[in-house]
Amino acid sequence: MKKINFASDNYAGVHPTILQALNAANEGDCAAYGNDRWTLEAIEKFKEHFGSSSEVFFVSTGTAANVLGLSTYLSSYQAVIAAETSHISSDECGAFENYTGSKIIPVKTGTGKLTVDLIASCLTDKGNVHRVQPAVVSLSQPTELGTLYSLTELKEITAYAHQNGLSVHMDGARLCNAAAALNVSLGSVTRECGIDVLSFGGTKNGMLGGEAVVFFDTSRELPFNFIRKQGMQLSSKMRFVSAQFTALLSNDLWLKNALHANALAHLLKEQLEPVQEISLAYPTQTNALFARIDNEIVIKNLLDTYAFYIWDHDGMEVRWMTSFSTTHEQVLDFSQEIKKQIVLFNKSF
Amino acid sequence: MKKINFASDNYAGVHPTILQALNAANEGDCAAYGNDRWTLEAIEKFKEHFGSSSEVFFVSTGTAANVLGLSTYLSSYQAVIAAETSHISSDECGAFENYTGSKIIPVKTGTGKLTVDLIASCLTDKGNVHRVQPAVVSLSQPTELGTLYSLTELKEITAYAHQNGLSVHMDGARLCNAAAALNVSLGSVTRECGIDVLSFGGTKNGMLGGEAVVFFDTSRELPFNFIRKQGMQLSSKMRFVSAQFTALLSNDLWLKNALHANALAHLLKEQLEPVQEISLAYPTQTNALFARIDNEIVIKNLLDTYAFYIWDHDGMEVRWMTSFSTTHEQVLDFSQEIKKQIVLFNKSF
Amino acid sequence: MKKINFASDNYAGVHPTILQALNAANEGDCAAYGNDRWTLEAIEKFKEHFGSSSEVFFVSTGTAANVLGLSTYLSSYQAVIAAETSHISSDECGAFENYTGSKIIPVKTGTGKLTVDLIASCLTDKGNVHRVQPAVVSLSQPTELGTLYSLTELKEITAYAHQNGLSVHMDGARLCNAAAALNVSLGSVTRECGIDVLSFGGTKNGMLGGEAVVFFDTSRELPFNFIRKQGMQLSSKMRFVSAQFTALLSNDLWLKNALHANALAHLLKEQLEPVQEISLAYPTQTNALFARIDNEIVIKNLLDTYAFYIWDHDGMEVRWMTSFSTTHEQVLDFSQEIKKQIVLFNKSF
Amino acid sequence: MKKINFASDNYAGVHPTILQALNAANEGDCAAYGNDRWTLEAIEKFKEHFGSSSEVFFVSTGTAANVLGLSTYLSSYQAVIAAETSHISSDECGAFENYTGSKIIPVKTGTGKLTVDLIASCLTDKGNVHRVQPAVVSLSQPTELGTLYSLTELKEITAYAHQNGLSVHMDGARLCNAAAALNVSLGSVTRECGIDVLSFGGTKNGMLGGEAVVFFDTSRELPFNFIRKQGMQLSSKMRFVSAQFTALLSNDLWLKNALHANALAHLLKEQLEPVQEISLAYPTQTNALFARIDNEIVIKNLLDTYAFYIWDHDGMEVRWMTSFSTTHEQVLDFSQEIKKQIVLFNKSF
Repeated sequence: MKKINFASDNYAGVHPTILQALNAANEGDCAAYGNDRWTLEAIEKFKEHFGSSSEVFFVSTGTAANVLGLSTYLSSYQAVIAAETSHISSDECGAFENYTGSKIIPVKTGTGKLTVDLIASCLTDKGNVHRVQPAVVSLSQPTELGTLYSLTELKEITAYAHQNGLSVHMDGARLCNAAAALNVSLGSVTRECGIDVLSFGGTKNGMLGGEAVVFFDTSRELPFNFIRKQGMQLSSKMRFVSAQFTALLSNDLWLKNALHANALAHLLKEQLEPVQEISLAYPTQTNALFARIDNEIVIKNLLDTYAFYIWDHDGMEVRWMTSFSTTHEQVLDFSQEIKKQIVLFNKSF
Repeated sequence: MKKINFASDNYAGVHPTILQALNAANEGDCAAYGNDRWTLEAIEKFKEHFGSSSEVFFVSTGTAANVLGLSTYLSSYQAVIAAETSHISSDECGAFENYTGSKIIPVKTGTGKLTVDLIASCLTDKGNVHRVQPAVVSLSQPTELGTLYSLTELKEITAYAHQNGLSVHMDGARLCNAAAALNVSLGSVTRECGIDVLSFGGTKNGMLGGEAVVFFDTSRELPFNFIRKQGMQLSSKMRFVSAQFTALLSNDLWLKNALHANALAHLLKEQLEPVQEISLAYPTQTNALFARIDNEIVIKNLLDTYAFYIWDHDGMEVRWMTSFSTTHEQVLDFSQEIKKQIVLFNKSF
Repeated sequence: MKKINFASDNYAGVHPTILQALNAANEGDCAAYGNDRWTLEAIEKFKEHFGSSSEVFFVSTGTAANVLGLSTYLSSYQAVIAAETSHISSDECGAFENYTGSKIIPVKTGTGKLTVDLIASCLTDKGNVHRVQPAVVSLSQPTELGTLYSLTELKEITAYAHQNGLSVHMDGARLCNAAAALNVSLGSVTRECGIDVLSFGGTKNGMLGGEAVVFFDTSRELPFNFIRKQGMQLSSKMRFVSAQFTALLSNDLWLKNALHANALAHLLKEQLEPVQEISLAYPTQTNALFARIDNEIVIKNLLDTYAFYIWDHDGMEVRWMTSFSTTHEQVLDFSQEIKKQIVLFNKSF
Repeated sequence: MKKINFASDNYAGVHPTILQALNAANEGDCAAYGNDRWTLEAIEKFKEHFGSSSEVFFVSTGTAANVLGLSTYLSSYQAVIAAETSHISSDECGAFENYTGSKIIPVKTGTGKLTVDLIASCLTDKGNVHRVQPAVVSLSQPTELGTLYSLTELKEITAYAHQNGLSVHMDGARLCNAAAALNVSLGSVTRECGIDVLSFGGTKNGMLGGEAVVFFDTSRELPFNFIRKQGMQLSSKMRFVSAQFTALLSNDLWLKNALHANALAHLLKEQLEPVQEISLAYPTQTNALFARIDNEIVIKNLLDTYAFYIWDHDGMEVRWMTSFSTTHEQVLDFSQEIKKQIVLFNKSF
């Protein structure tokens, strides 16, 4: 029996509209490496959402978007301030350090969110030649714990960062979920909040594969074309990535997919809130629940039928994630099953 | 007017059979990062062609396949011996040096092919602490000039390399064209010739996007899963790459596509052979012609209607390349146009 | 007025015996890059102390010894477990990450010392392709906080590390101080405790300049000659480094210098123990005191005449360090001055 | 029997005046890492010779000076144009590539010297995203073949480079020999010729050890303090390097040593010119002769008593090098012995 996915939004397939757009791009031969009309069109779409002066580059993975985007803001002796739980620090197998040779300063946070105070605590060694020098703040929006920065929080952080000579990167692997949850446009939560460079994720919101590096700060000369090629990320048949992005960013598809995923996470939360054996580790603000069950047997039994990740090392906290493809019925079935397993366990004692 | 493509086989779209397989893989949710049945199936297909002990990993670009594959065979003070014209040396924007920190020893060759003597000339500084130490020979099959190593040549080189403690990498971005031209199996021209690690290209032979790193030498522990992730090349929805490979490697599609491309290059060659104003720079063995015209006006006029690359810096040598999607008619039209432009030019004087 | 040094043992000059040996090596021409009799002699001295199968290489800085030594034990996707306060993590301006491209896992500790439990807590993600894989434990002996591992603690850690496939590096920039304090030989606290590779410091114990990388685990082929050259650390006139090491390691000079420095730190501690306004942050086990004064004015006044480091970011904790060149009188004068400044401050209120 | 050194100027010991200055710097404790009066004094000396706006940093090896100096002028996708025979390309075990991740474009030259035409031939791929982008020209003065650029040649190259957006680095490991041979000041052959950054060598001209990176182009913010520390090259007891430089650059010692070495190379040349069995491969312009003997037996016999390098791979070309410590008598004896061995060989047939 195939397991039902509550593991990750990247377990989902491709949204039909996006797949259709990809198929439509298979129209004879055209120039490679992004010199094609689909790519031009997709870049225009990005500019509609993110502002006309944005510079946009497509890459194949979120790790590549983060690492290559950050690399343009760093000399080797400089460092990135990021939450300890950030993807760049914890989930990319050291890609950042390996590629840039720079250091991440991992900051302990309660809910995956940096604050001005936490950032300030990393700036005490300015000019000390024995210490790496922070040059970039990297924020995940939403965080890897599903939490959100408010627009006010973002603006406070970017203002402080810029005053202190730091650039600000946003890891937006699930930016659509964040914007949908905050009920704002994609530009509002990025450019308008003072972000300098964004990793924009398409794969987790219904694309087959494709991420974008978006530069808002275009005051500097941007050699990112070279960086992308050297970074092994220049796709020859780029039109098939670009066509997906155009579909995602047209007719509010990005928003519909994200709203759907978010809504189902909230539905799951509502179903489980009455269950006293379950406590949620963080506020459910986007499309993930982090639930503490403290019951290995229940977790094990659930894993027979459902796919999801054990999140902490003691094995008692789990992550349940929804996507554009999750159904209402799956959520209801899953919450029923969770409750059932808990009851069964309680009865057995 | 859209130009007719004789620029590159990566200007082509996706072969319909492959696109169909990709679409078929969009079947609900499944585990990410290659833990899915399509990836298992594709790996089995590779083993059918390349031997059951092969280890196979999919990445997104040829540059990534080359760089990450090579990196597993190198310490930082070691070097790769490669033709000066090789893709890793000349066409990947320094990705190899940037990622591995190692050095390529570029070897001048007449036709893009290394020989035992040329390799031997790079081994004179063994043990000299001031010099990088060659550890790998990298061969392109076919070469970037469209030429081929015979099986005998490959075996001589790999035997010599192994005797001298060198591993052998093959850049097979167009390996299908080579095997088709040599009328041998994919395994014959790689594993059976003593190759240790292969970059196998799918994109240039009809795939949307996807390359494979294939290890034949599996005596060593292979941490390539980590290297791929750290190398920013672990695709989350990998099934859509895998399904393409399965299609390419089934029912001789790889061979049919390659034979087609090769045949049309030969057709073009036949058409142009009588033209005394054109000389071919290298033997036409696969799907590319390198033609010296020595006439800027003719070249410029042809570029109005046809897409192709100027190959040398004096602007007089061009590369004409065919693909699975090139048609018989396109070749005949193109050769007619070339002849016409030459006649026009001659008349005007 | 020149300030009296309680800042660092690297503020000291060169011990006269060592300087004499350096001068004596200026005896005509000889082969460069370590192929000289002084280097052979120094290597033999190391083998006397560290065991005859040791492999020894001289470099110019402690950072180089740490980074290049560690690099031989790491693939790019692997990581080093080290205390957050370790020199490699906090005081080398990211040299490790920049040179190796690998990651340090910084561990919070109370006193700069790792434990088996702390190490174990870093091993929970073995085989997880998204996470770097710990391969080396790095211990500082003494720690950057002046504390010591006992031989028993070292043996427990190395046994646990080896059982778990980890190698063990020791940052011994002040190893002489540690061995002197523990009243054991240099070999006892390193090789005999299961250390695999050691950074041995000469500069902080009376040399002009010179550090050594010592490999105890010589089961593997050691390409360190190449790594040192490539690491920009192969000194051409190496004899002048080697001659210093021979002097340091002869006639117990290493021990005398270290005992002297340690004794004076203890003298300072004794003098200040009765002062209730001062609390020591860590046990004084080698040649450094970390004192919390909680009085900015006293600290500022002391800095008029004495050189020392403010250690924490709130400005209330200081490091006072002694060296082979510190005198009994300087310590007594300094402790008098500290007491005087505290009394003066108290009176002013 | 100890061999007489004609191998390298780094086989020499330390000039007595320099050693005396080093000893004199052992005057109590002082601040580490270059915050001492000897370092200030040495930097002033450099400014006297190289211009008051120069920025000067000391490192331990010529490789470090080259690599770290170059690294400040390069992004990863950029490249250095250098002669194939340059030290950075051929004699530093790939340190440049390993540290910077960038590429050297090795240029074939007759005599180790780049020209405007040779540089121009490397600039044909500007803006091509598949190719590294040249950003720096590196010149060795004198070259590794003992030849010299005239001031006119240098000015032509730097003018061309700057017009084309390239910076110019000079590897001056033996710059003193060059300036002495050209009968110009150190500033004339560097700053006044438009050089942007210089590796200035002290070790080969009588120092114990020490090289300097000198920036003439100080329009940019210079983070070299961090780069040096991160590059593992920040010496704690820097005063002992600095004091050597002050001695070398005072009272024309740099010039006397260099003139001496150069004169003895010319003496050797004069002695051997009449010998028809010997041909010199390059003009003898500084302190090295590259002699082709074409007689393995003579070479082998000479190596019994004299130290020198076989230079080419066929074993028939040798390098004979003089230094500040070479004596007039040694040169006469050596030339006698060479002639004697040739006569002996001729007789034996």
